[in-house]
Order: sequence, then C-alpha cells, then structure tokens
Amino acid sequence: MIKIVDLFNNKIANDEVITVGGWIKSNRNNGKLGFLVLNDGSAFQNVQVVYKPTEVANFTEIEGIKLSSAVKVTGKFILTPTAKQPFEIQAQAIEILDEATEDSPVQKKEHSFEYLREIAHLRARTNTFNAVFRIRSSCAFAIHKFFNQKNFIYVHTPIITGNDAEGAGEAFIVTTRSDGNYAEDFFGKKASLTVSGQLHAEGFAQAFGQVYTFGPTFRAENSNTTKHCAEFWMIEPEVAFNDLSQNMDLVEEMIKAIINYLFAHNFAELTFLNETVDPTLLERLTTLKDSAFDRMTYTQAIDVLTTALNNNHPFENKDIFWGMDLQTEHERFLCEEISKKPMFLTDYPKDIKAFYMKVNSDNKTVAACDLLVPGIGELVGGSERESNYDKIIARCHEMNVPVEELDWYLDLRKYGYYKSAGFGLGFERLVMYVTGILNIRDVIPFPRTPKNLLF
Amino acid sequence: MIKIVDLFNNKIANDEVITVGGWIKSNRNNGKLGFLVLNDGSAFQNVQVVYKPTEVANFTEIEGIKLSSAVKVTGKFILTPTAKQPFEIQAQAIEILDEATEDSPVQKKEHSFEYLREIAHLRARTNTFNAVFRIRSSCAFAIHKFFNQKNFIYVHTPIITGNDAEGAGEAFIVTTRSDGNYAEDFFGKKASLTVSGQLHAEGFAQAFGQVYTFGPTFRAENSNTTKHCAEFWMIEPEVAFNDLSQNMDLVEEMIKAIINYLFAHNFAELTFLNETVDPTLLERLTTLKDSAFDRMTYTQAIDVLTTALNNNHPFENKDIFWGMDLQTEHERFLCEEISKKPMFLTDYPKDIKAFYMKVNSDNKTVAACDLLVPGIGELVGGSERESNYDKIIARCHEMNVPVEELDWYLDLRKYGYYKSAGFGLGFERLVMYVTGILNIRDVIPFPRTPKNLLF
Repeated sequence: MIKIVDLFNNKIANDEVITVGGWIKSNRNNGKLGFLVLNDGSAFQNVQVVYKPTEVANFTEIEGIKLSSAVKVTGKFILTPTAKQPFEIQAQAIEILDEATEDSPVQKKEHSFEYLREIAHLRARTNTFNAVFRIRSSCAFAIHKFFNQKNFIYVHTPIITGNDAEGAGEAFIVTTRSDGNYAEDFFGKKASLTVSGQLHAEGFAQAFGQVYTFGPTFRAENSNTTKHCAEFWMIEPEVAFNDLSQNMDLVEEMIKAIINYLFAHNFAELTFLNETVDPTLLERLTTLKDSAFDRMTYTQAIDVLTTALNNNHPFENKDIFWGMDLQTEHERFLCEEISKKPMFLTDYPKDIKAFYMKVNSDNKTVAACDLLVPGIGELVGGSERESNYDKIIARCHEMNVPVEELDWYLDLRKYGYYKSAGFGLGFERLVMYVTGILNIRDVIPFPRTPKNLLF
Repeated sequence: MIKIVDLFNNKIANDEVITVGGWIKSNRNNGKLGFLVLNDGSAFQNVQVVYKPTEVANFTEIEGIKLSSAVKVTGKFILTPTAKQPFEIQAQAIEILDEATEDSPVQKKEHSFEYLREIAHLRARTNTFNAVFRIRSSCAFAIHKFFNQKNFIYVHTPIITGNDAEGAGEAFIVTTRSDGNYAEDFFGKKASLTVSGQLHAEGFAQAFGQVYTFGPTFRAENSNTTKHCAEFWMIEPEVAFNDLSQNMDLVEEMIKAIINYLFAHNFAELTFLNETVDPTLLERLTTLKDSAFDRMTYTQAIDVLTTALNNNHPFENKDIFWGMDLQTEHERFLCEEISKKPMFLTDYPKDIKAFYMKVNSDNKTVAACDLLVPGIGELVGGSERESNYDKIIARCHEMNVPVEELDWYLDLRKYGYYKSAGFGLGFERLVMYVTGILNIRDVIPFPRTPKNLLF
C-alpha cells in the first residue's frame, strides 16, 4: 500500500493504478456515484476516492458503510488541476478491512471542543486535532533538532524527587501508602512529582557545558483556567558560562527555529488553523520569526505602564508600582501596544523571583528575563544563576528556602561554577501559541486538571 | 572562546592563537613546566595545555589551583603528530574564571561506581559518566530522528493515569493527601503513575497510523537488582495496519539505526568504554548492526532448551516445559549459544502474556515477540494487538482485567480497528547495552530505587 503523504509528494504519475488504505472520513453517494474521503494518518490532507457501481463490485455495501471504517482502495490516480483537490482516486476495487460496528462519536459535522474533550481517545480523528497534534509532534522534533545541532546534551532529569525546589504546597505526593507514613514508604521518605528539572540540569551543565531537559512537570494547583494543567511538558536548557544576554539570544534563536521548522513541514496544518481557528495565526508567526525581539528592563516597563495609566489606559489592575508582579494584561500591553512584537522583560525585583537568580549590582533586581509575546503574554522565563556560594546561601535564608535539602545543588558553587544561565519553555503554551488554540486542554493528548482524570 | 570540539574538527590552523574555556581535569607541574588537562563539555575529549613560567604571569597560582576550577586559556594551537594527543595548546595567558573553593569529591584517581552514585550531581565530570551520558543523549536523538524520518507522530501519553493497565500493585499513587481519601483528592479519584503509554498510543495510532511515545514510566516494585529502577524511560511505537512480522522489521531497523548513529557520532566514547568498561563492546555492537536478526517461535525454543537440558546443559532452572516463563539464563542461551546474534522469540503461550495481545489461530499462543540480545537477554517486547471487540472482552474476563476502567480503550475496536502492532523498548536497558555498563543506576542521571531518593 502507498501512503497518502506520497500522493502529495508528487511520487505518483497520472493514471497510475495504486492501492491506499485508511479510514473513511466522509461518504457521499447519489446511487450512481460515490465519494469517499480517506485519511491514513500519514498526512494532514485526505484523498478523495470516486467510486461507481460499474467499477466497484460492492458498491451498495460501500454506499452504506459507517464512517471510520478501515478500507483498502485500488484505483487510478488522476490529477485534477481544475478541482479543489489536486487529484483523486478512481476506484476499481474497495476492500473493507474492518467495518465500524457502531456510529463513531466523531461524525462529519462540527463538534465543540468541550464535547471532544470527553472523547479524547478519538478526537485526533478530527481535522482540528489532527492538525494540532501533528504540530505538537513537529514542535518537539524541532526542539530536539535545534539543540542537537548546537551540540547540547539532552538530560533526563528525575520525575520523582525528594526536593521541593520552588516552594511547598504545589507538588503531588508519590507514595505506595494511604496513611502518610513516609518513613515506611517506598523511598523511606516523602517523595514528590517534580515541578522543574532546572536544578538537576544545572549540575549537568557544569559537566557538559550545554544541556537541555524535555520532560513532564507537575503542579497540584487547584486552578481551573485555560492555561493550567496539573501535568505538562517543559523544555529547560542550561548553559554554563552564559550570561543573561546570551541566554536571551538562545531563547530567540530557538523560538525562530521552531517556527521555521513548522513553516517548512506543517504549512498545510497552519493554513487550516488560520482558516478555522485563528485568522491571525500565519501573520503572527511570520512577524515572530522575522523580527528581532525587543528588550526592556522591568524598571523601564513600570515607567511605561505608569505613563499609560496616567493617559487613562483602561487597565483592570490599576495598582502599578515598582515591585509588583505584572499581570497578563500588563505584559500584553507592553508587547502588543508598545513593542508590537515579542519582547524580553529583564531585571525584575529580586523579591518576586526565585532564590537561584543572580542578584544584580544594584542589589535590588535579578538577572531574569521573561519573553512576552503578542496574544499570550509570557512564553518563556529564564535567568542567569547566582554563582557565588555565600550569596546564594544568603538568598536561601532571605527567602526561607531550606538549604539542607538542596545542599548538593548549592555545593555546585564550590567546584568551579563560573556562570550559568537557562530558561524554561512551557511546551503546551508554545503549542497553543503556534496553533491559535486557546485552551491548554486542547493541545495535550489527555489533559489532567482538577477533578478530571479521564482515560 | 572556541569550543574544544572545534579543535577536534580540524577548524584551527597550526600556530593559530586561540582562547578556550573549561574546567581543569588534571594539573601536573614540575616547577618549570605545567600541564593542564581541560574539558568544556563540548566534546568527550580533553585538550592539554602546556604552561611555562616564562609565558604565564600567574604560573605559581595556576600551579596550585584546585581541580575543577574554571579557567580561560589563550595560547598557540600546536599540532603534535608524534604525541599521544593530536595537538596541544601552548599557553600565553591563563585567566581564572572561578576557582574551586574546596577539593572536588571527583579527583583524578579512579572512583568506584558505588562511590560515584553518592555524588550523582558531580559524576558526569568523570570520563566514564561523561561518555555514558553523551551516548544516552545520542540514543535519544537517534530514536527521535529515526521515527521522524519515517513520518511517525510523537505523542506524549499521560504520566498520571486513572487506569491500571497491566495489573495492580505495581503503580505509585499520586495524591495531595496523606489520608487515602481519594474521593476528596485532587482528581476526585485514585490516581497513579503510568506503567506504560501503550494503550493511549494505540488510540493515537488509529488516527495517525504511525506513532511513538518516549517518556518516563514507573514501577513501585521492591526489586533491588541491577536491572530495575522505580523510574525509567520507555519508547513505545505503535503502527496501525502492521502485523507481527512488520513489527519485528521495525524493531530491527530501529535498533540498527541507533547503533549506526552512535558509530557515526560517538565513536570516541564507544572506544573509551571498550577500553575501560567492556572489551567486547565494539565487537558486540558491530555484530548487532551487521547481522540479520533471527526469528524463532517459543514452541521451537522450548524444544531447543529441552534438548540442551537432556544434553546436560547446566541450567540453574531445569524445570523446562511448554507454558513456562523463560528465565534470563534461557534467553541468553538461545541468543548466545544457539543464534549467536540477536533473535526474536515469537508466539508465546497466551497465559503468560498480556490481555491485549492477538490470540493466534491455535487459540494457545499470542502474536507476541521479544527481542533477545547476547549479553543481556530481553531488550524489546512487543505484539500485534487483538483487534476484535468480542475477543478482547473475552480475554479481559479470562485474565480478570476490569473492562469498565478500560472502556475507552476497548471501544477503539468498534470504529474501524483493522490491525495494530507495537513494542516497548526500555531506554535504560538500551543504554546499558550500548555502553557495556552493568548497573541501571549508572545509565540514568539520578536513579530512583527502593529506599533511595537522593538529589
């Protein structure tokens, strides 16, 4: 059997007799002529099969076959330059490989995202989710390829951890018991699901120079928003000897490499999503890949926001002051109204950022960078790390981070820790951004959210 | 600064003045002449720096500097065709970027694997672990590249699951409570860490044709062996329309692609491990990539083993009969003594295999395949899946698999499920095989085993 993707790759000559297999996506028939739309998963696109009672012995059977049935079609490949689709197959024989025994919950009509979430095991059969999960797969490969070409080492940081890196209360407990007696538990102590691989990645960056993680991370936060899942994937590169500026260069290069990969490999999917989900998608991604990202300090940003507020910009949160945590509306204002393109916000107040970030010489701000993008707000967060042992210990004390649990991490500073910088990219947020999909539940195969654990 | 890898890529001319940075691996000095060995993580190999008091102003300081300190060296790149190393750098200046403040637990002498496990955050700085984790990273990329080139879709199957696919008792519980009240828990029901992504992958294969997973999986088994970790990574490809034979073709092609990738990209690491860890490594891998894998049925294998037993082969387990689960010694005998190369064992008794495997027409065996490799035993396990709804339901009942929990998975058979086959590759077992490392704790960055949760 030939894959449908090969029909689109100009590998078949006009009039050639070929055999394809796949699942029936639609079936129209007027008793004299039938049209099957077939997809085999090898391409986003379908192929149309024309079948006639004079050619196809089991015409009546095919006429009544349920959608989603698996069939094998032998017929002539015919170029159709004047039609909507570039070619069709004129069937000579249609063999039923496996007939659907029930009507599929996925039918030809339009289904709501909410409905499709209830059938997440089947929703990839719709055009929208077919496009989304192809793009998700391509994003993952583009990321691996990007870092591989730059000679980064991919490191699998642990999923089960005894540390609680970024504060308590958000981590899931991993146990084999139902009584909370962790001393008698599998690991002999309390174990959690990781919230970040960064600390472990830093250790590896001190050996390999350039490393990245790509794995699942978890938050036990009870947030029912369109942006939060309990389980999601993160990419966390870490580069020894890099400073904040080089860190931002790397972010920018990576994001552009991903978008360029999608334009080269998934243009059909992007075009479909641009037509059906987000009419700004192609333009937005083109702007992103073709423009130099802006850079602005947090302190400058507070000035800009204060001026906008004084000019009566209708922020919902009007309490703007140096030291505040910016809200999404502020971030979006900065990149959508001021920059009109992606921008890095840098040098945040140290009190609203993590203990491991390098404190700047002003002793008020840290060498952090968040990438803000139009339409979504924060896409990436990163920083240069505090490389001095005494300083990071002092920061731990200031921020009530338990130093005993993290001694191995802090000790890295004793053995030639010159510099290190890295960032975290939330993979689902990236996929939302490059597909135009607005709910995180619709960009991850089987979403996990509060009170929701199906499949 | 130039990366050390570029020195090995013939990018620098003899006598050129260059600057490199990295960590000091060794430092010899006789008061008139010093030798630093430097590594920056960009290559497995180190570079040797020669420094003299007449050239280097801070000669005395460098003479006494601790190992692992980060330095920047400017000097002449000199080809040394008659020496052990192909080139050296004759230092003109050595700048200390960050001096180690304590003696590193990793010193120039040989350390035991056991000792290094206690400092897993630092062990990647040794030659052995440098080689192992470079190879691990390359294996991961080779796998992604292989499936990407074959047009597979990479799917992130869920880590937290409400199913308990392959039997109870082995899964970790994921919770936010310490009282076992799962109805009031985060997900409103009992949640576990996944033991396999296969069932979810099957659903996606029915949409995309060819898919694969690559993610962490978990077992709460209290096994303290050299082959078991509580957390490990698996690759699980699944191909709709494939039968068992095509499934084995795919396994063989994938394994060979990985080995070929390593020979092309990590020959220095393989050579080092061949010299220091496993003197059969290069020969073993060469045989594997160059030979056609054998195929033998389980029933044939029982005959072969019975004959060997009758000829007084000293098996520890002598209770050989049709229906038994083969032990590692039996598997190794088959591929090491009989085949003398990798072999697939197929068509196992249905009672010792999983409920989802396709029952053969003899109604006694299932269309399963295990890949056995010399030196290790089972490396891959796979099967064709039962595609008939009524038959798989009957198998669930026979094997006490709860059908209610798996309704979504079983229902796939109602909507045009023609065929599907796939397999699971334990990633750590692969890395052990291609490095010669004998303990799984030494091929995963931060191993998790019973009563052992460091870092």
